[in-house]
Amino acid sequence: MSESLHILCDRWLGNTGPQSDIVVSSRARLARNLAGARFARSSTPEDLKRVHDAVAAAISAEPIFSEFHEIVLADLSAAERSILREAHLISPELERHTKHCAVHLAPDASISVMVNEEDHIRMQAIVTGYRVREAHRVINEVDDTLTRHLQFAFSSRLGYLTACPTNTGTGLRASVMLHLPGLVMNGDVEKIIREIAEHGFAVRGLYGEGSNCTGDLYQISNEVTLGKSEEEIIESLLGVLDQLIVRERDARQSLFNEKPVFVEDAIWRSYGTLVQARMINSAEAIGLLSRLRLGIERGHFHDRLTHHDLNRLLIEIQPGHLMAMRKVAEETELRDAARADFLRERLIDIANSN
Amino acid sequence: MSESLHILCDRWLGNTGPQSDIVVSSRARLARNLAGARFARSSTPEDLKRVHDAVAAAISAEPIFSEFHEIVLADLSAAERSILREAHLISPELERHTKHCAVHLAPDASISVMVNEEDHIRMQAIVTGYRVREAHRVINEVDDTLTRHLQFAFSSRLGYLTACPTNTGTGLRASVMLHLPGLVMNGDVEKIIREIAEHGFAVRGLYGEGSNCTGDLYQISNEVTLGKSEEEIIESLLGVLDQLIVRERDARQSLFNEKPVFVEDAIWRSYGTLVQARMINSAEAIGLLSRLRLGIERGHFHDRLTHHDLNRLLIEIQPGHLMAMRKVAEETELRDAARADFLRERLIDIANSN
Repeated sequence: MSESLHILCDRWLGNTGPQSDIVVSSRARLARNLAGARFARSSTPEDLKRVHDAVAAAISAEPIFSEFHEIVLADLSAAERSILREAHLISPELERHTKHCAVHLAPDASISVMVNEEDHIRMQAIVTGYRVREAHRVINEVDDTLTRHLQFAFSSRLGYLTACPTNTGTGLRASVMLHLPGLVMNGDVEKIIREIAEHGFAVRGLYGEGSNCTGDLYQISNEVTLGKSEEEIIESLLGVLDQLIVRERDARQSLFNEKPVFVEDAIWRSYGTLVQARMINSAEAIGLLSRLRLGIERGHFHDRLTHHDLNRLLIEIQPGHLMAMRKVAEETELRDAARADFLRERLIDIANSN
Repeated sequence: MSESLHILCDRWLGNTGPQSDIVVSSRARLARNLAGARFARSSTPEDLKRVHDAVAAAISAEPIFSEFHEIVLADLSAAERSILREAHLISPELERHTKHCAVHLAPDASISVMVNEEDHIRMQAIVTGYRVREAHRVINEVDDTLTRHLQFAFSSRLGYLTACPTNTGTGLRASVMLHLPGLVMNGDVEKIIREIAEHGFAVRGLYGEGSNCTGDLYQISNEVTLGKSEEEIIESLLGVLDQLIVRERDARQSLFNEKPVFVEDAIWRSYGTLVQARMINSAEAIGLLSRLRLGIERGHFHDRLTHHDLNRLLIEIQPGHLMAMRKVAEETELRDAARADFLRERLIDIANSN
């Protein structure tokens, strides 16, 4: 299972999308619960099974879902569940729970419908590049389609009801993963992040809540789901992101003009460590790989390394993927050694021709 | 001048000597002052000139000095004076002063007789590897020869008189430069260094007093010059060094047996940074190069990098040498970039074939 799983999971990375030099990916997710059923956390196994079956029936009834693939979490090993989380297809919450939990995946893995997460349904669309509206449009279509078969818990005063009040209202969370090396290197990033947070947006690392920003990668999403329309939420997020992208682009340009050797040094040192280390943990690898993205923009790697390659690598170096690909044991030291070997094999050919 | 100077200066590195995996070099120096002349720091220019001329006359009178080369410090640029200091042929003290200062160098630069340093004469023998006795024998011969022509300030109670009381007595300072990566990596080095210091030995970095230990390189010398014979000083230093060398050898063996990947990782990461950096300062370069010494012992570089190569590199990456070889300006940033280019050119061929 796990071998095909890790290949399936990375399919949404098939291309890089618009503004991929700064925006790695865009996501939109909706939280929904079935009317008349207890929230998952206070459910009996029978309740959970009923929710599972109802969602499965809705999905199998609709032609647009005909190619979807259901994965039952209880059928997976812990390593396989990690693979799904690492590829951003299920939440850490769903990874931890297995009882009657499932995920329905689109053939290209760009849509996932999680069942019996904190909410009965968490549906997500993920695409590469700066395409928040597209992700939102896609997930709305999924939502509309499911609505034909399922009745969602809804209050005319509050909107959609959710297990955690922070999701109540639209149930919408839109987010992007940004690569901000310019603002990190010029030292502005912390101030900007604080400003963004004060305006009601959450800033997180590569793997959501609780993960610190790793390398130059920042995940930004709306905090507010209540009292605003979905359209307003998307609009205000895009307003912030548009500005942030301009500032990152300016920061890079200034660095390239004023401190070209400083930038080159940072890129090539990262490359040197990635290619020569014999043990490397994920956090360090993410940080170093994220610096290589800047090298692509500077033309250092010609066509031998692309944004797409890097997006894949950021996922492939995660423990679950590594264990599946390299048949390596769970011990941290062995995994760190396998990660270093993997990175060396993949990156050594990007010959240093500058 | 400066081009030939940096080539001349590195000649004493011609071979690597015994135990060169741990002992980079051995030195012995004697401090002497002319009887009846004021110490240099309270001298008039005329006094200094008289000392200079007296020493020059003594040297030109003796056949064993016939191939010696006199360098008058006032004839050199600041960069050229740095070259002499970086190659360990003159002291930082002599580098700072030029008036009537000179150094008489043996053809292979293994003997230098400094004139009008803190003392009228500082004579030094420097050899590669663990050869303290040889350095001591050589410098004693130089001393004996000069004694035929010069009368040194001597008290039957105190011994040789020197400008600073810490050198009075024998005027002998014997020292070795040690490479201790095993004890650095296993964390024992600080405790051992403290013990050694408590027994009356000084521990310094690559460039003498005031320089911190850089990388895994430690310079150890006797503190006491008074109340002991030269033979006793050498004996007690060798006693400490013999033990230290055994401990370093044990530490390396344990690391190689117990944590081979950890050691390999440290070596190859250092290599990766040295080969890929675009700016690098001397201290970092010394630290990284010193790690490569361990790679030689592990057979990582086959015959493409030797202890001799590394000994040269440790000197060549110093600012003065770099400025002479690469015709680079004195600005730190430019020099750091030139150092990175130099290291890349020199090291890139040590292909990673492991």
